[in-house]
Amino acid sequence: MEWLEGGITAVPGILASGIHGGIKGNGKRDLALIYSSVPARAAAVFTTNQVKGAPVQVSMEHIKGGTAQAIVACSGCSNTCTGEQGIRDAREMTRIVADLLGIPTHHVLVASTGIIGRPLPMDRVRAALPGLVKALSPQGSRHAAEGILTTDTVSKEAALRIDVAGRPATIGGIAKGVGMIEPHMATMFCFLATDVAVSQEALQAVLKRAVDRSFNRITVDSDRSTSDTVAILANGLAENTPLDKGSRGFRSLAKGVEAITLRLARMLVKDGEGATKLVEVRLRGAKSRREAWLAARSVANSLLVKTALNGQDPNWGRIMAALGKSAATVVAERVAIWFGDEPLVAGGQLKPDARLGQIREIMARPEYAIQIDLGLGSGQDHVWTCDLSEEYVRINAKYTT
Amino acid sequence: MEWLEGGITAVPGILASGIHGGIKGNGKRDLALIYSSVPARAAAVFTTNQVKGAPVQVSMEHIKGGTAQAIVACSGCSNTCTGEQGIRDAREMTRIVADLLGIPTHHVLVASTGIIGRPLPMDRVRAALPGLVKALSPQGSRHAAEGILTTDTVSKEAALRIDVAGRPATIGGIAKGVGMIEPHMATMFCFLATDVAVSQEALQAVLKRAVDRSFNRITVDSDRSTSDTVAILANGLAENTPLDKGSRGFRSLAKGVEAITLRLARMLVKDGEGATKLVEVRLRGAKSRREAWLAARSVANSLLVKTALNGQDPNWGRIMAALGKSAATVVAERVAIWFGDEPLVAGGQLKPDARLGQIREIMARPEYAIQIDLGLGSGQDHVWTCDLSEEYVRINAKYTT
Repeated sequence: MEWLEGGITAVPGILASGIHGGIKGNGKRDLALIYSSVPARAAAVFTTNQVKGAPVQVSMEHIKGGTAQAIVACSGCSNTCTGEQGIRDAREMTRIVADLLGIPTHHVLVASTGIIGRPLPMDRVRAALPGLVKALSPQGSRHAAEGILTTDTVSKEAALRIDVAGRPATIGGIAKGVGMIEPHMATMFCFLATDVAVSQEALQAVLKRAVDRSFNRITVDSDRSTSDTVAILANGLAENTPLDKGSRGFRSLAKGVEAITLRLARMLVKDGEGATKLVEVRLRGAKSRREAWLAARSVANSLLVKTALNGQDPNWGRIMAALGKSAATVVAERVAIWFGDEPLVAGGQLKPDARLGQIREIMARPEYAIQIDLGLGSGQDHVWTCDLSEEYVRINAKYTT
Repeated sequence: MEWLEGGITAVPGILASGIHGGIKGNGKRDLALIYSSVPARAAAVFTTNQVKGAPVQVSMEHIKGGTAQAIVACSGCSNTCTGEQGIRDAREMTRIVADLLGIPTHHVLVASTGIIGRPLPMDRVRAALPGLVKALSPQGSRHAAEGILTTDTVSKEAALRIDVAGRPATIGGIAKGVGMIEPHMATMFCFLATDVAVSQEALQAVLKRAVDRSFNRITVDSDRSTSDTVAILANGLAENTPLDKGSRGFRSLAKGVEAITLRLARMLVKDGEGATKLVEVRLRGAKSRREAWLAARSVANSLLVKTALNGQDPNWGRIMAALGKSAATVVAERVAIWFGDEPLVAGGQLKPDARLGQIREIMARPEYAIQIDLGLGSGQDHVWTCDLSEEYVRINAKYTT
């Protein structure tokens, strides 16, 4: 595996574009398009929120065929809770793009992120889509990555060279999402492409596993959005023998997709609304993996823990309280906690020789891990979280106004 | 029922005191004592957090006998995650108080709130307890209420006259707790007393139900503390025929205790860390009461909803998203939402004739209700929450330092 410059257009046969189409009031890019020059195997994972945006509903329908050639996305308006009109608007976006590209409508996926409950300004979207298609370019990844941002402060791209059964292949992606972020996804997009030839079933399995190990293990604010979409297009231009589950090269693809989603997921948390730190909560010694996940999430989502991370305050009692309130079995006297590799708590109490100065130094870093051992079994898991800052509240107190 | 001035010492035979004993660095009161001149029936409810403070463990032991005559509490240090030493210190506090009052040690309950993981400064506590006992007074409620505060900005007291089977009786209480507040309690104390004569079984039933309807229905930050304690002393000085479950007068006592815990619970949310608003989330139309509770809590705990309340921003899409992510069944197209009595959402969409100006006016109030109808059944429930402000983060980012 070798990291490449660029994002989704690092993949042969993938073009992308991003322009301002008049949805955002501030003149920034708000439309993005990803296009594969040949039809591609497609797989996708969508939000588990029961309230699903209209574009999610339309994309869920289109992905059923297992083939897609384009993904059109907009930012600034999520087209959610917009009734029948919302569904019609999402469908129209796919139809216009399909017509312009000369491909079937059901080969176009659609995604929207932004404010919930407002209809799309379809006049402007209609007028802008031809320009979006015209702007498609093999260097268009950055523009597309910008076209899907909302409160994100930086665009997120990643690309990777992998070896598939002796042949070089590429995976590239873009992502967005810094609020409403929790395991099981968020107001979050990740669009991926690869030139690997792979069966649809194998592709879906690879994507599901990668999402589970990356986006489902990050949390910013424990909210889960109505619009989350992760989609991958595999256009087969690497001309490898098509991969099936378990075939030679399948593991390379799986590892590659996992690496790229993990990198993008970490970028999301790092750019979390108001976040100043990326903290990995590594939990071991739980009774089971499930309990490890529950305990790690309880710590990663505790407001009191997250504000302490922000204050760089080694307030380990809040970690103990967050563990104790979780659904995982916790025996206070067995708990041990480290910041980085520096021990702080043993037997559920402050270690008498804990070096608080060292720990404060670790907490001042932009990235570090909190290790927790429950001392009860062999279950382990991890979650990436960020701190909660006054800036988070500022950003979210007046988002629509 | 008639509300009275004062708090726990409004009850005949109940004395209280609060002094500074050197636990808090700022010279404020940090020790509190409640004393019944005669032995009282006692009932209590404690935190469900698996990590329990040493005082909770000792009080759980002492309450088993069903009789208590004193409650000693301290603030500034929760004596939690302090190992064997913590248990010894909690026991010693009860023993010293018992000796000074001339009552059995197991008739003294103990509670501590504050930073987790630091041992109590027992030298100072030992030296201060005689002064605390000496300060006991029939006007001591306010001082005791102050003695249990941590980040609270105001002390909380309430008192009520009730009629029990034709006889006047009194219930009084004090409470604290503005962070780590969630249903199933918090870093929260509520100490109640009444002169009603009542069986221990009936008293426990009354308390459990009242806590369920009050403290278990408030949320500030969805954290749950290690030290929550609600205790009631019933000293029988009203000389009514002792109440049993279902007996004449039992309902009066139950209603009175519920009224007083509800009033104190609302005071807690209103004084929630950084909170500027008290918002009741009233949820109906759920498939069951349990689902109503889940959906209401999901809304009440959503950071995005809470920041929107802070910004007085009618961002109803976040309410939809919070409903959709809950474990309750939600069908977007059935959802209706009101702020106060002003309709905003119907059929899962913005009502075309919604009066946003009116709604902003309601959101500017210090107290209001959000009504949600899921349109699926007859399950209903409610939760009190508060907004999330930058001040919350300021308070919590550096609490120990």
